[in-house]
Amino acid sequence: MEVYELLSRNIGVVFVEPETPGNVGFLARAMKNFGLQNLILINPCSLEDEAYYQAMHARDLVEDAIIYQTLDEMIENLEPDFLVGTTGVPGGSYNVDRIPLRPSQLASAINPSSRTFILFGREGDGLSNRELGLCDMVVSIPTDREYPIMNITHAAAIIFYEIFKKRDFDCEGLEDASGVEKKLLVDEMDEILSLIDIPPHKERVASRVFRNVTGRAFRTAREDHTLKGVLRRIKNRMKE
Amino acid sequence: MEVYELLSRNIGVVFVEPETPGNVGFLARAMKNFGLQNLILINPCSLEDEAYYQAMHARDLVEDAIIYQTLDEMIENLEPDFLVGTTGVPGGSYNVDRIPLRPSQLASAINPSSRTFILFGREGDGLSNRELGLCDMVVSIPTDREYPIMNITHAAAIIFYEIFKKRDFDCEGLEDASGVEKKLLVDEMDEILSLIDIPPHKERVASRVFRNVTGRAFRTAREDHTLKGVLRRIKNRMKE
Repeated sequence: MEVYELLSRNIGVVFVEPETPGNVGFLARAMKNFGLQNLILINPCSLEDEAYYQAMHARDLVEDAIIYQTLDEMIENLEPDFLVGTTGVPGGSYNVDRIPLRPSQLASAINPSSRTFILFGREGDGLSNRELGLCDMVVSIPTDREYPIMNITHAAAIIFYEIFKKRDFDCEGLEDASGVEKKLLVDEMDEILSLIDIPPHKERVASRVFRNVTGRAFRTAREDHTLKGVLRRIKNRMKE
Repeated sequence: MEVYELLSRNIGVVFVEPETPGNVGFLARAMKNFGLQNLILINPCSLEDEAYYQAMHARDLVEDAIIYQTLDEMIENLEPDFLVGTTGVPGGSYNVDRIPLRPSQLASAINPSSRTFILFGREGDGLSNRELGLCDMVVSIPTDREYPIMNITHAAAIIFYEIFKKRDFDCEGLEDASGVEKKLLVDEMDEILSLIDIPPHKERVASRVFRNVTGRAFRTAREDHTLKGVLRRIKNRMKE
């Protein structure tokens, strides 16, 4: 089974005491955008139509959500291998229950074969110190100090994105141009430069600048192919 | 001026024809979470109370938003250096207006001193091919193929996060344990292992496993210090 399938199957998303049904829907949609499917709600508000409406095409996740009355009851019944807390209020090095990992560190640390449950908690107050104390690790998103408290489903979307970010786009032919192809493009330009009447040191600078600019630009193999074709035609025209 | 201050000042966020006031508020909040301040609205819906309500502490961004009736009018007046489009429908290599960069590639490509404007467009239909054609680059978030269309403000939060992700947490003492400190911890454990009566090959395996497990765990200098203190006491007690 490929790694993303394992992650989708093994990760659980736990929303502790959601206060507004819309946020349950927004969370479900963000989960489904990244292929997550296991939603667990602890002592939720009434879900009402709003949760299903905001979930859009992820209604099924809300319908299939597992509900427990307490976090301890969830842990006892589902026995997660790893419990990950999230907080918008990370602690310094003396507050050992709130030492934050970045989402990218969580992504590196997750074992796709383990049942990892990620806790998001309460729109107003977040997770308690006791709840974070139950977790194996605590994740926080680096934000601006002026206004660090994020919308809970925005935070969740960012964490899901980090976990799945290496996934390929579902499009054809988007592999990056290889180093060899990039070199061939520069060679083509160098030939063109040699056909222009400029002093050698300016030619060298021009070559370097072309290499810098194209080197900085991500591009697909096909884009590179197109550029090379254009340069070759320019060169041939100059030689006529 | 430090790099994040430059980015905050120079990046503009453009919401093209927002259809629901709540989303303008959600977008403003996500912007402020990452220190962004320049919101531009193209032909927006009426903002109503909902936009200000969902913005929470980012009401000022909604109040200060610059409004234009068309994207062309915005470009003519504000003259951005780089225009970045976003799409949930990336194209393959033949659709050159929709060749997607990942958010992390955008983050690498942004020059903090340039005025980079990022376009988000229409909850229902996204940005048009013509609008994407005006852009210098197009960004897309890799999602699950079953349900790729994200909530627009979730997508925005992820892109802002990537641009600012290297920012430090606003907490004391969270620097990672250095390689030297990690080595000292392993040395401490090795001494303890030498005090236990086990065969040499098992001792070697145990040392390696301890090194593996602690090596995989991100930890702060202070956490490492605490662990070392504990091991030293254990060792001293064993020597009594």
